[in-house]
Amino acid sequence: MTTKLISSANNPFIRQLVQLKDKSRERKKTGSFLIEGVREVSLALKGGYELVTVLFYPDLFSEEQLNDLTVNVRLSAPDSYRDETQLNCIEISKEVYQKLAYRDTTEGVLAVAKSKTNSLGDLVFENKNPLILVAEAPEKPGNIGAILRTADAANVDAVVIANPKTDLYNPNIIRSSVGCVFTNQIATGSTSEIIDFLKSISIEIYCAALQASVDYHTQDFTKPTAIVVGTEATGLSDAWLENSTQNIIIPMQGEIDSMNVSVAAGILIFEAKRQRGFK
Amino acid sequence: MTTKLISSANNPFIRQLVQLKDKSRERKKTGSFLIEGVREVSLALKGGYELVTVLFYPDLFSEEQLNDLTVNVRLSAPDSYRDETQLNCIEISKEVYQKLAYRDTTEGVLAVAKSKTNSLGDLVFENKNPLILVAEAPEKPGNIGAILRTADAANVDAVVIANPKTDLYNPNIIRSSVGCVFTNQIATGSTSEIIDFLKSISIEIYCAALQASVDYHTQDFTKPTAIVVGTEATGLSDAWLENSTQNIIIPMQGEIDSMNVSVAAGILIFEAKRQRGFK
Repeated sequence: MTTKLISSANNPFIRQLVQLKDKSRERKKTGSFLIEGVREVSLALKGGYELVTVLFYPDLFSEEQLNDLTVNVRLSAPDSYRDETQLNCIEISKEVYQKLAYRDTTEGVLAVAKSKTNSLGDLVFENKNPLILVAEAPEKPGNIGAILRTADAANVDAVVIANPKTDLYNPNIIRSSVGCVFTNQIATGSTSEIIDFLKSISIEIYCAALQASVDYHTQDFTKPTAIVVGTEATGLSDAWLENSTQNIIIPMQGEIDSMNVSVAAGILIFEAKRQRGFK
Repeated sequence: MTTKLISSANNPFIRQLVQLKDKSRERKKTGSFLIEGVREVSLALKGGYELVTVLFYPDLFSEEQLNDLTVNVRLSAPDSYRDETQLNCIEISKEVYQKLAYRDTTEGVLAVAKSKTNSLGDLVFENKNPLILVAEAPEKPGNIGAILRTADAANVDAVVIANPKTDLYNPNIIRSSVGCVFTNQIATGSTSEIIDFLKSISIEIYCAALQASVDYHTQDFTKPTAIVVGTEATGLSDAWLENSTQNIIIPMQGEIDSMNVSVAAGILIFEAKRQRGFK
């Protein structure tokens, strides 16, 4: 473990990290992203993310906490290169911490981690009867975060984002998912890639849609199932509706046909869980 | 109908409206609040709110739209004072509109409406077997908005907010509820007032809680039912747990026990709806 100190917010490395926090382009270019918070960093490690650098502000994050974290980093490194794992630990000043910190929290720790590719081909299904949640083009980071929390709670086998509007490592998504972006198995891809993938492994596709729909609770979600939700504004694209096993609808009985997309996803996923006896 | 023009953002009345938008205290003091957007204003009228003033920016909101709106205002006024209803219509300049507009929309219309008292005693249950959603001390306007949308979609008989942290006419709540703050029958009160009220009308109280809970889907929600959710951080206060018919839990099978409160409310309410056959 190497440790150094950076006290100036104008340090070029710190300026680069600010870019990493703020710019999706920078995250894509470098294949890395910034994580903030004790729980989030721990969940990333648990989720098999490789940490490259840890930055800590010692008034808020103690040496003991730092030692615990670095031990966990070594333990979570793959056997093949555990010995070589050189975690770069950087002590930062208050000024630098405030420049990098995204939240109003005062946990004093940030980390740079390597992005995962999140390819469909990387998905592993241990369950022979998987339950998959697909969201097409979700826009608001808060909704994506809420969906990822629901997916974690339901222990779905995978979350798949079709035609993503933002990269998963957007700090707003990390934050609003309270780290569940690290605990779920996630893939991204185009709608057509995902439909081909689901068909290739014989998953039934249930699309939340108004068109030619039946009430969601009348359907059997105990077989290999993907539940697919679209945007609140425009719903799902035609390709989904054309390749649907069955379109499903949550009966709406109010003044306006309107439900938050993450609430709708939660209702559908937990109906599937209920039918499966929460197994 | 009287019409006048205000073109300066420094006009004292306009400055007062900015206060109405920004300050809960001002809304309480005046018993009125500001609504923005065509749909929101229409839903408020439909929900029996009395409009006092309509402000329109004519480049975005046409004279025809204004006429339709004022006809609807007259139609929605109680018979007893329909003739006297004097809706104050004010044409505003772009500068004034931008000062008052809260959202990035360009609908060109705002209205000042009279607040409702939202008292428990005002609740009317046409259904002999009501389904009520109670949220204790919800904090984020976005969550309150999502809860109100779910409540509208489920056509619950009432939404009750215990120990509210903000007034319902906060523009963030109006916006995130997409106007469902006007379509639901809503009451607010202290936790003890609400418990007394629910008991007085023999409503079963199901509290979402970790303590001494059973899985939510094992319970019968077909009788008169209140589903009660707390905050994500601290859950429900002891008074709720002590007066609960049964504590219920959504089984969580992920890495972290964490679900967005509006998603949890949606799952519970729609399980009740499913059991009731969506009647």
